[in-house]
Amino acid sequence: MRRTERSLADGRRIIYFDRDDRPERLARDDRDLTGESVAEAQLRLDELTGEWIAIAGHRQQRTFLPAASECPLCATTPEHLTEIPESDYDVAVFENRFPALSGEHGRCEVVAFSSDHSGAISRLDTEHMSLVVDAWVDRTRELSSLPEVRSVFVFENRGAEIGVTLHHPHGQVYAYPFVPPALARVLMQAEAAHARGERLIADIVAREISDGARVVLQNDHWVAFVPYAARWPYEVQVHPISERGSLVDLDADERAALAELVPRLMRGLDAVFSEPLPTMSGWYQRPAHPTPQEDRDARLFLRVISNRRAADRLKYLASSESLMGAFIGDVVPEQAAASIRDALARS
Amino acid sequence: MRRTERSLADGRRIIYFDRDDRPERLARDDRDLTGESVAEAQLRLDELTGEWIAIAGHRQQRTFLPAASECPLCATTPEHLTEIPESDYDVAVFENRFPALSGEHGRCEVVAFSSDHSGAISRLDTEHMSLVVDAWVDRTRELSSLPEVRSVFVFENRGAEIGVTLHHPHGQVYAYPFVPPALARVLMQAEAAHARGERLIADIVAREISDGARVVLQNDHWVAFVPYAARWPYEVQVHPISERGSLVDLDADERAALAELVPRLMRGLDAVFSEPLPTMSGWYQRPAHPTPQEDRDARLFLRVISNRRAADRLKYLASSESLMGAFIGDVVPEQAAASIRDALARS
Repeated sequence: MRRTERSLADGRRIIYFDRDDRPERLARDDRDLTGESVAEAQLRLDELTGEWIAIAGHRQQRTFLPAASECPLCATTPEHLTEIPESDYDVAVFENRFPALSGEHGRCEVVAFSSDHSGAISRLDTEHMSLVVDAWVDRTRELSSLPEVRSVFVFENRGAEIGVTLHHPHGQVYAYPFVPPALARVLMQAEAAHARGERLIADIVAREISDGARVVLQNDHWVAFVPYAARWPYEVQVHPISERGSLVDLDADERAALAELVPRLMRGLDAVFSEPLPTMSGWYQRPAHPTPQEDRDARLFLRVISNRRAADRLKYLASSESLMGAFIGDVVPEQAAASIRDALARS
Repeated sequence: MRRTERSLADGRRIIYFDRDDRPERLARDDRDLTGESVAEAQLRLDELTGEWIAIAGHRQQRTFLPAASECPLCATTPEHLTEIPESDYDVAVFENRFPALSGEHGRCEVVAFSSDHSGAISRLDTEHMSLVVDAWVDRTRELSSLPEVRSVFVFENRGAEIGVTLHHPHGQVYAYPFVPPALARVLMQAEAAHARGERLIADIVAREISDGARVVLQNDHWVAFVPYAARWPYEVQVHPISERGSLVDLDADERAALAELVPRLMRGLDAVFSEPLPTMSGWYQRPAHPTPQEDRDARLFLRVISNRRAADRLKYLASSESLMGAFIGDVVPEQAAASIRDALARS
């Protein structure tokens, strides 16, 4: 893997993660982006919940489902200058032009998975996916070192059904200046388990492997299963078999096994309804600048959720979920696991 | 108000809340519903969060956007037998045929607001809306008395954009066998405020009234404002000006003032984009069988949220919200409040 750092015309940074045999990344960003800087988002404390809300009014102006010929994540051509100045690339990471978090309030980065506009993680070969994993590790390490950052969240939104505004295959990284509520909640549960002499995540993983009813995919280093109490119609957790706190803790074998497993899992999910499944995928991992408790209890895992509940139906989070936080699942987890296993066998 | 209890063909209960001058409600349900009983939902504990998830696989078969001539919430006609046996009604409450919660796991009820299929709360006159408020109070009181119920949630989902499966104007009541996470969170914050010698909700309400920048509507007993740290593009909280713990605590003047304010507020919200705004509205109130802390700290208020962020755009809860619980707001709350005030002035 070769890592190259460059700057965009407005000073934002871009980092290329390429196979070793690629040409050097020397292209300049020739766009005129003067006066294009956007207002910084605000952070406001919601006293009712004690949670931080980012208010990013400028995001109303963000690019919305552009035609392929206007895609800002494609490689640059003489006719179309994009966010990525090179004429080709493997994986590129750059600072989001319309960030929800910026300056003292964190960072937002875009991870372009491939220069192929119609590609997807499910179609990346293991070598290419390894570059994506390298980028995830790199961004976790560097963003976690920033003093204003408390948590690095690596994720992918996929599908217009969940509000994706760019079709080009890409993920994102949010570096929050706080520990987000859902991660804080898991850490709280892990602390309570520790106080009882249990291990929250390791016990769940051991039980799922032993039970097997909800396991959908497994290799030497990773196991993927539908959680016992799934919130979403299709939901898969991917855990390292050895406990790890963060993407940066993975060894070379674990990274390689992950690069093989994730595209395979996504192909299986796409096969459930014989069309790309709208998904949200994101990594739970140790906060940056962890407290001793976080350092002890945090565990790395990936959650992949989908709002498709049937071929022609989406699940909506309505009042019970959105106002009360009480989830009503529409698909029995063991049936979801069976459907995914069948789909994996077909794909 | 006249309250009449009757039974449906499969034993489910229906309660009519009518103006005093209506005919007696004596109609029988002549449908053959034998063998139509549905499997009970499961409750599963999500160990990662300590939260309960209802798994209701049978809801996949629930009625989905039927044509008006097949609407199960319209009054019964000789040609079309519905869930409501009467040939006319004001407000009717009945047990949900496809409950997410049932038996030992709670209750789900449907509140048909009016026999007018194309009606809406925004178009109810104050007298009719008073019947809806009466129904809310009645159901809160009775369901709270059941030993298996820990929290009664009165709500309305409105608009296909948030997944409503029936267009006929109706709300719902969920009686959970647990305190739902979002309510528990507010109670925790209220307890922490109490420990600091503060009052969480009363202090917020006093500050919002004094500031005024986010207030959209007010009368002698209620105030409606956009919260300082709104999560949704359009979000309004409606609080009683005197502190109340539950719908059952409201006095006659407060109920009457509420019956006037809510339809007015909904008319204003519908005027923001000159078409019905998709909304989720629901009441936070004191849990059933409250602990002493809940009894002391719980406060009644209504939250109305919308996922419409622009005339042609919806907000989606993507990975940051759905996986990490970290909300990114697209509309600055003071601007949302100004838009709603303008819309109220026009409506």
